[in-house]
Amino acid sequence: MKKILIAGTIAFDEVTTPFGYSGKMPGGSAVYLALSASLFEARVGIISVAGYDFPRHFLESFKRRGIDISAVEISDRYKSFYWKGLYYENMNRRDTLVTRVNALAHFRPRIPEAFTSPDFLILGNLHPAVQLEILNALNGRPRLILLDTMNYWMETTPELLRKVIQKIDVLLVNEEEARLLTGRYAPVHAAAKILKTGPRYVIIKQGEYGSVMFSNEGVFYAPAYPLETVKDPTGAGDSFAGGFTGHLAEYDSFGWNEMKNAVVCGSNVASFTVEDFGTRSLEKLNRKLLRERVGEYVKMTAFPLQKKFIS
Amino acid sequence: MKKILIAGTIAFDEVTTPFGYSGKMPGGSAVYLALSASLFEARVGIISVAGYDFPRHFLESFKRRGIDISAVEISDRYKSFYWKGLYYENMNRRDTLVTRVNALAHFRPRIPEAFTSPDFLILGNLHPAVQLEILNALNGRPRLILLDTMNYWMETTPELLRKVIQKIDVLLVNEEEARLLTGRYAPVHAAAKILKTGPRYVIIKQGEYGSVMFSNEGVFYAPAYPLETVKDPTGAGDSFAGGFTGHLAEYDSFGWNEMKNAVVCGSNVASFTVEDFGTRSLEKLNRKLLRERVGEYVKMTAFPLQKKFIS
Repeated sequence: MKKILIAGTIAFDEVTTPFGYSGKMPGGSAVYLALSASLFEARVGIISVAGYDFPRHFLESFKRRGIDISAVEISDRYKSFYWKGLYYENMNRRDTLVTRVNALAHFRPRIPEAFTSPDFLILGNLHPAVQLEILNALNGRPRLILLDTMNYWMETTPELLRKVIQKIDVLLVNEEEARLLTGRYAPVHAAAKILKTGPRYVIIKQGEYGSVMFSNEGVFYAPAYPLETVKDPTGAGDSFAGGFTGHLAEYDSFGWNEMKNAVVCGSNVASFTVEDFGTRSLEKLNRKLLRERVGEYVKMTAFPLQKKFIS
Repeated sequence: MKKILIAGTIAFDEVTTPFGYSGKMPGGSAVYLALSASLFEARVGIISVAGYDFPRHFLESFKRRGIDISAVEISDRYKSFYWKGLYYENMNRRDTLVTRVNALAHFRPRIPEAFTSPDFLILGNLHPAVQLEILNALNGRPRLILLDTMNYWMETTPELLRKVIQKIDVLLVNEEEARLLTGRYAPVHAAAKILKTGPRYVIIKQGEYGSVMFSNEGVFYAPAYPLETVKDPTGAGDSFAGGFTGHLAEYDSFGWNEMKNAVVCGSNVASFTVEDFGTRSLEKLNRKLLRERVGEYVKMTAFPLQKKFIS
């Protein structure tokens, strides 16, 4: 089995959305990434730090999913990273009400022993300096490095972030971040500019509309699964990244068709995440449910036009 | 060949977008609908009115495309309907600066002689009373009636509009209009509610993101062709409707697969329209260019996941 190493936050989130209030719930990029990736045939390990206030049983449950948490630091001095946010009716927009960095401010990443040469590396949302430190600490280069970042780092540490972007294969950003990073408005133009700076693949997330992958091999458009209820978009991007990488690890191929399939898998995993607050829905997700939804998704996106129209 | 009867406006549009200023250009829903539908194997006729100021050569050019303009009224007293608008960087949003109804205020629809029993009827954006008058004036019911309407009629003549919606097969609206019409936020919910009021198909337009078709047979998601340049979104919805109906008329089938193909055709025709101001790009469009773009579109949306993942 291929190895996926994940770096990201372990945190508490507290959100209010048009559908209600979540309360203080376990979250963080490493949590969503690992839960999603562990749905696939792959070995998953985590680099992260939790505060002394983080529920032990929550992390212990990761072991039952085969997730390696041996290198996760549990701080005995600091609380966990905490984020409080507010989503509006258009869930593509959110406001941060409170951020407390806590344990994350003192974080020095440790690589799990079994993951010093991972096949896949997912750099979840973290300080670019920490991301670089992880890249330098590995033995050799992973076959595929995926980066999820956000506007905060583009604004505060653009030079360091650029160094990280030079070293990765897949960049995952939303439309606004793609614009901020490149100064180009249209996703097509922003992606073309990013593809010249290192990554071979750029995936632009469009929230409830889906996502689009750009590369020199082509463009692939994956609409989002149309949901009856989107209760809480938190973690959608990380769930996408985990499902995307999980699929590639399971099939161990980077052909263009497999990259497309990975986008579809990531998109469908994320569609579960947003159906309930925090990790609630993702924790209940299994292969059977995912397979059923992907089946529906295929029906909703396939059309036989090519056979008659294109000759 | 099947007959498509189109009712809509013949107008002057004047827009400013982030890409420039159009000047005063021929436009109107009937113009975009007819130009798009005439790309397909079908007979196309128009119900509309133009003012005395509308350029004759523009309408005459429709005859060369085989479009029946024999019932188009040319007012000798009034000017053409005129709309002036402003689009913002996010082209999904626009402001109306000036509307002058002019000739349209005095319009009594006339049915072209050869189109008293059309196979397809497209009711473009017009007063619902005029749309009802057209429906009542036809011999028998067309096999498929498509309605494009807008928030203005939902707010000013909701009862009359409801009567029209009861009589149609396909409703074409954007997300905001779907919400306004139903009071439901999620497209899935809005569509479900609309499907109980008459139409068998609801197509929700999502601008640069694409469109989604709902029916009791399923849901179909068609992302928009990712364009480098969107200069002017005016007429995109009508171009979609014309291409959609044109495809159905050409293949003369209403099976779910053909409905999906029609959405793809409509979406791709509209992708040309928005690449230049007014009807400029649409006027130059031909089957070869459309076929090439649909070919690209198929590559950008097809993925082979079903073969291995779903068993």
